[in-house]
Amino acid sequence: MGSHEQTTLVTQNQLFYGTFIYPKTLTDLEYLYNTAVAVDQNGTIVAIERDCDLSQATDTLLPRLGWAADSVTIHSSSASHNQFFFPGFIDTHLHAPQYPNVGIFGKSTLLDWLETYTFPLEASLSDPVKARTVYNRVIRKTLSHGTTCAAYYATKDVTTTNLLADLCLRAGQRALVGRVCMDQLSPDYYRDASAADSVAATRESIAYIQSIDPTGSIVRPVITPRFAPSCSAPLMADLGKLAAETGLPVQTHISENEGEIDLVRELFPAKEIGAKGDSYTHVYDTFGLLTDKTILAHGVHLSEEEVEIIKARGSKVSHCPCSNSAITSGAARVRWLLERGVEVGLGTDMSGGYSPSVLEAARQAALVSRHVAMGCAPADAKDSKVVNKDGIDRERAKLTVEEVLYLATKGGAELVGMKGKVGGFEVGMEWDAQLIGLGRDVADGEYEAQDEEEGNVDVFGWESWPDRVAKWVYNGDDRNTRKVWVKGRLVHERK
Amino acid sequence: MGSHEQTTLVTQNQLFYGTFIYPKTLTDLEYLYNTAVAVDQNGTIVAIERDCDLSQATDTLLPRLGWAADSVTIHSSSASHNQFFFPGFIDTHLHAPQYPNVGIFGKSTLLDWLETYTFPLEASLSDPVKARTVYNRVIRKTLSHGTTCAAYYATKDVTTTNLLADLCLRAGQRALVGRVCMDQLSPDYYRDASAADSVAATRESIAYIQSIDPTGSIVRPVITPRFAPSCSAPLMADLGKLAAETGLPVQTHISENEGEIDLVRELFPAKEIGAKGDSYTHVYDTFGLLTDKTILAHGVHLSEEEVEIIKARGSKVSHCPCSNSAITSGAARVRWLLERGVEVGLGTDMSGGYSPSVLEAARQAALVSRHVAMGCAPADAKDSKVVNKDGIDRERAKLTVEEVLYLATKGGAELVGMKGKVGGFEVGMEWDAQLIGLGRDVADGEYEAQDEEEGNVDVFGWESWPDRVAKWVYNGDDRNTRKVWVKGRLVHERK
Repeated sequence: MGSHEQTTLVTQNQLFYGTFIYPKTLTDLEYLYNTAVAVDQNGTIVAIERDCDLSQATDTLLPRLGWAADSVTIHSSSASHNQFFFPGFIDTHLHAPQYPNVGIFGKSTLLDWLETYTFPLEASLSDPVKARTVYNRVIRKTLSHGTTCAAYYATKDVTTTNLLADLCLRAGQRALVGRVCMDQLSPDYYRDASAADSVAATRESIAYIQSIDPTGSIVRPVITPRFAPSCSAPLMADLGKLAAETGLPVQTHISENEGEIDLVRELFPAKEIGAKGDSYTHVYDTFGLLTDKTILAHGVHLSEEEVEIIKARGSKVSHCPCSNSAITSGAARVRWLLERGVEVGLGTDMSGGYSPSVLEAARQAALVSRHVAMGCAPADAKDSKVVNKDGIDRERAKLTVEEVLYLATKGGAELVGMKGKVGGFEVGMEWDAQLIGLGRDVADGEYEAQDEEEGNVDVFGWESWPDRVAKWVYNGDDRNTRKVWVKGRLVHERK
Repeated sequence: MGSHEQTTLVTQNQLFYGTFIYPKTLTDLEYLYNTAVAVDQNGTIVAIERDCDLSQATDTLLPRLGWAADSVTIHSSSASHNQFFFPGFIDTHLHAPQYPNVGIFGKSTLLDWLETYTFPLEASLSDPVKARTVYNRVIRKTLSHGTTCAAYYATKDVTTTNLLADLCLRAGQRALVGRVCMDQLSPDYYRDASAADSVAATRESIAYIQSIDPTGSIVRPVITPRFAPSCSAPLMADLGKLAAETGLPVQTHISENEGEIDLVRELFPAKEIGAKGDSYTHVYDTFGLLTDKTILAHGVHLSEEEVEIIKARGSKVSHCPCSNSAITSGAARVRWLLERGVEVGLGTDMSGGYSPSVLEAARQAALVSRHVAMGCAPADAKDSKVVNKDGIDRERAKLTVEEVLYLATKGGAELVGMKGKVGGFEVGMEWDAQLIGLGRDVADGEYEAQDEEEGNVDVFGWESWPDRVAKWVYNGDDRNTRKVWVKGRLVHERK
């Protein structure tokens, strides 16, 4: 399958009208009512008209843009169904081949989870028939949850990694697709034969992905050392050079689990690899893997020294709360990362994480931040230096609804190299968006059974818009994601 | 509205056939395949035939029971849709009037959450029109999530508390319905005028609820002191006497939040109330509120001494993980409670909790237990006495899928006084059940769009039944709850 299967680009200009909500800053959402957003045939927002009715918008905006009214497709959000447009979600960390295992992890933690559940399944995905089934499903599933861009790990197999890129391109989901590099400490049946083989296979996959989408507007390759324990020093050094040579993004895992951290220290003594320190972060830094296009998943147990290095290199962190809780890795201190100036996005981390939904990751990010807060002292505590090793008090540790939605969209855009291009509704940005619907208000009197199919959120009609958004964050699911667009193209619709 | 509106009892014998799963013990689920369960017209399981096909069951079981084949309704679970019968969920703690606020709590903690969000809404529910809308919705909503029995707090208003009981009876949802007692430290607009008034109003509501369902088979009254801070010593003493006099169950909150615990200590000094100790538990014990029919919500910060008292009195704990995380109350140590011999069930605690789903509470119970585990040392740690104040190591602290499903059903049955009557499928138990469907297996090749409406769980076909159950626990929602029965009567069906 090649580029000829890429679906046709949008050929019509579009006008979106109604209620728009998006993260303006980390702490504040912008609410635009009675607003028109014009999106050209390339999927770019070319004009925004506030406080107008639809006829005003069509009467004045379209002529100004030189668009004939009958050539424009109009999409309105339905006020009676509590609908609004919201930026598409960005999943900054997930493993496509692990999707069939979501929810299956028992009481395991990272290293035994890999051996028991993960490596056998990933290895089996070198079968193209099985890979097609699984990859199609994960793409359709994440699109149905509003994920317009995903940073995927595939497997070590080149053919099916390339297939994943093909399928993303055809479905119209933006994706970073990474062929997984691993030449040590993995089972015999699932390991690169050598560092040289691993790099060659990576180059092959990069070349293919760049051939099917030369501008990288939808799919792009990403250099993917699985994580330090499964990569030899020569392999990491070569991948660091490849990143420098190609300017491509890098993704890997860091500091997820205490056992893993001990293992990395044991495997890569600072003296042997010539590192300036003995932390996990020093290992990647030594091999040139910390660039300003590096996505580091987890970062649960990072130290102040490590965060300083990450910040200095411009690398970013993908926070994966569902996974960190499910496999008992720990509770990442997101407020601390943000206050240290590190950019943070959200990852579902399937199947360490159990859910395909970035909305669920946002919900869990809020809840996990409250568990971090439980370990912090109140702001007025006398022994706050002892209790708060990061110097963050209990109230400050908590993430708000607005903040987790920022991480899910605008924050994620920074991780996948799309800052200023997606994650909001501003002129010049691309139309990666969801139409969210919370359903009709609960009627007075008897219960209306037919409302069920509009999802699990109940709006009674007296709630403010910020409260409606909070209800969506805490009880919303894929039923509320009515339509999804990427670069102006409709890629999912719920009937 | 009165008892005349109670829907007709089941008048037909029923035969359920297919796959049945239920908690056998805390740690193990029973899986019955190709099994027939006969339920008589009173909703009681009268026979179970294992390892048979449906024709065998009808040919041999029905004559043995003296049931004419044409008088029996047959319900089969669909193997191709991954369906199975499971006991109904029991929600052991929720506030019906707070339902419109689910998901709305900002960064608040318990005491400011009550003032800001909760008391104004509860007070407004003395309006019978509003109450009918909200209560109908919460009943239909919880039924649609498989809740066959709920321990409700209503408000201080007698008329609408009684209305809640009427509506539960009509809908066929088993319920404990409690008129909330609160005569101090509450806003002027929402407080009982005196202890005597509070008790009189409680007696009035008890009498009404017993009049509409004299046998208490569906709805029963429950004595409900809101929590110690909002009840005077005389009121608690009177309610303790009422519990002794009537033998009715009691429900209240305990040790949810650190600020609340300090407040209780301040309000009820041991010397003044004649308590044998200065804990929160001593307060309730002093006033006779700890009986073997008492449901204590939360118990997050209980001490060893308190748990000993609770165990000695036979009182039980409702664990509410969604609420405890959302309003930053703390992480309850459920393993510790269970090992000390305290019976534990699950509560959604709407709207401190954000979700109407006991399945979500079960999922969060598993995740919160992992946060408890993160604070425990590994079993082989040298300083385990220091790190594990409860003496529980990291692995042991974690709750399994089987255990959280036990808490959601059989564990809950113990809290609501229905031990041995519901929560499993055994002869003599009543048919409070859900038909769960996970949908068709994911097809090879291309994605089948129509499967979406069967929910968020994807089964690929190669999973074991325990893995399918784990998938349901982690990604299931109300879409998977296809039908719900209480005492043999169909009370919810998803088309």
